Amino acid sequence: MRLAVIGIGLMGGSLALSLKKKGFVHHVIGVDPNEHHQEQALALGIVDEIMTLDKAIESADLIAIATPVNIAEQLLPMVLNQVNQQVVFDLGSTKESIVHIANAHSKKGRFVPTHPMWGTEFSGPAAAQSDAFVEKATVICNKEQVDQDALELVEKLYQQLGMHILYMNAIEHDIHVAYVSHISHITSFALANTVLEKEKESDAIFELASGGFESTVRLAKSNAEMWVPIFMQNKENVLDVLNEHISQLRKFKASLEKENFEYLFELIHNANQIKRILK
Amino acid sequence: MRLAVIGIGLMGGSLALSLKKKGFVHHVIGVDPNEHHQEQALALGIVDEIMTLDKAIESADLIAIATPVNIAEQLLPMVLNQVNQQVVFDLGSTKESIVHIANAHSKKGRFVPTHPMWGTEFSGPAAAQSDAFVEKATVICNKEQVDQDALELVEKLYQQLGMHILYMNAIEHDIHVAYVSHISHITSFALANTVLEKEKESDAIFELASGGFESTVRLAKSNAEMWVPIFMQNKENVLDVLNEHISQLRKFKASLEKENFEYLFELIHNANQIKRILK
Repeated sequence: MRLAVIGIGLMGGSLALSLKKKGFVHHVIGVDPNEHHQEQALALGIVDEIMTLDKAIESADLIAIATPVNIAEQLLPMVLNQVNQQVVFDLGSTKESIVHIANAHSKKGRFVPTHPMWGTEFSGPAAAQSDAFVEKATVICNKEQVDQDALELVEKLYQQLGMHILYMNAIEHDIHVAYVSHISHITSFALANTVLEKEKESDAIFELASGGFESTVRLAKSNAEMWVPIFMQNKENVLDVLNEHISQLRKFKASLEKENFEYLFELIHNANQIKRILK
Repeated sequence: MRLAVIGIGLMGGSLALSLKKKGFVHHVIGVDPNEHHQEQALALGIVDEIMTLDKAIESADLIAIATPVNIAEQLLPMVLNQVNQQVVFDLGSTKESIVHIANAHSKKGRFVPTHPMWGTEFSGPAAAQSDAFVEKATVICNKEQVDQDALELVEKLYQQLGMHILYMNAIEHDIHVAYVSHISHITSFALANTVLEKEKESDAIFELASGGFESTVRLAKSNAEMWVPIFMQNKENVLDVLNEHISQLRKFKASLEKENFEYLFELIHNANQIKRILK
């Protein structure tokens, strides 16, 4: 199986390394406008060769779109125009918008909209991992619109990676990820900005930063080029969750201002119920 | 050296196990009103015997107060009343209030106010770890008010644990920890409440929760009995940071509402500067 990866960053690079390791693909073609990333991907054995988009589509059996979601939207119609029996899938964190674009194309059956729920706060091919995705969930959206052979190939691919496949429609997906992924990134970015604001006054505070701080602020290292398009595409859902989150923070604020111990206990006890879900 | 630990939970238990492992103490006396915790601490080898507070103070060379900060405030005068040459220190996350109480006592020189910057989201003796504290920072406050021998003993103790000692005054400490610890807990609690609110509508979202979500929400498992007193004691500083954090979140909200891409990029690029501090 020959795989073309469009966008050789953290996600595309990890996909290529992991699929090669599993023997699911034997040859990987990389497509990326960034020459430094091209060189790194070749040097790290992530891709076997670099091609232009057109050549790569022609030469591959399977095409993964692993770019930021705004670029994926632009690329998808161009890719589908040139596809015959190849299978195309994406790895983007938002799904409604790209499914909408696919639906307008005559070859929409060749495109499988997916979202593997794995990532790190790092980016670029040097951040790629060959043991990525294992035991994580992956989402396949709107499968009823996809050709049977294309769906089966992508399902097999994710099974090979050791992922648990969830099926849902794209609209539902985008609401869910606003809660379990996008808001975590916004709070982390905002927390970093809060603390960096203070840092102007004092460097010493960072000597105190312990594990708890590190885990809540880790995501603030994440790449703007990836996340701005995600937030813009999922704007309505993200704003809903952000408003809810700000109102939850206001409850903590009110309980402190009023020195309402009982209410503060109640808020924390309620939050502790997350133990039911996160072991 | 005989150590008495008042409050055999995560912190006190980890201190006892770690100091025993290092050979810094050879006998640990536990004081705790919770009978289940007494039994667990004995069974786990955290303490060698259980005593009443009075007996423990009489029998020990070194006394660690490892209770929630509101209890520590109540205990400290009672402990100092009975102390002769023993050294007393606490491990509390707030320092201004307890230093204020110590200063009103004639034996304030025997008390070393400290805050080892280590912890987990779990509580109770079963959560104690024998390799806790290593390579973390610990704070000693207002050292000029402490007897030289008491200061030296506690310094030696933290050095034995492999900790990096920082000295600062209690007021400064409480401002700093509001930024690097307390706000992380509040955002994590609020994030858990945000998501749990949504869960009422759909269980499926948690199948999607990935590493990013887990790391930002981990602290939401933390114990209310420990954290409510911390937030109340450090109310003014925590409110300052919480207001700043809410205003940072509002910037993200505004940039999304106005679809102001440039501003959103700027906010995230600014947050990325946290890389300078967190490797």
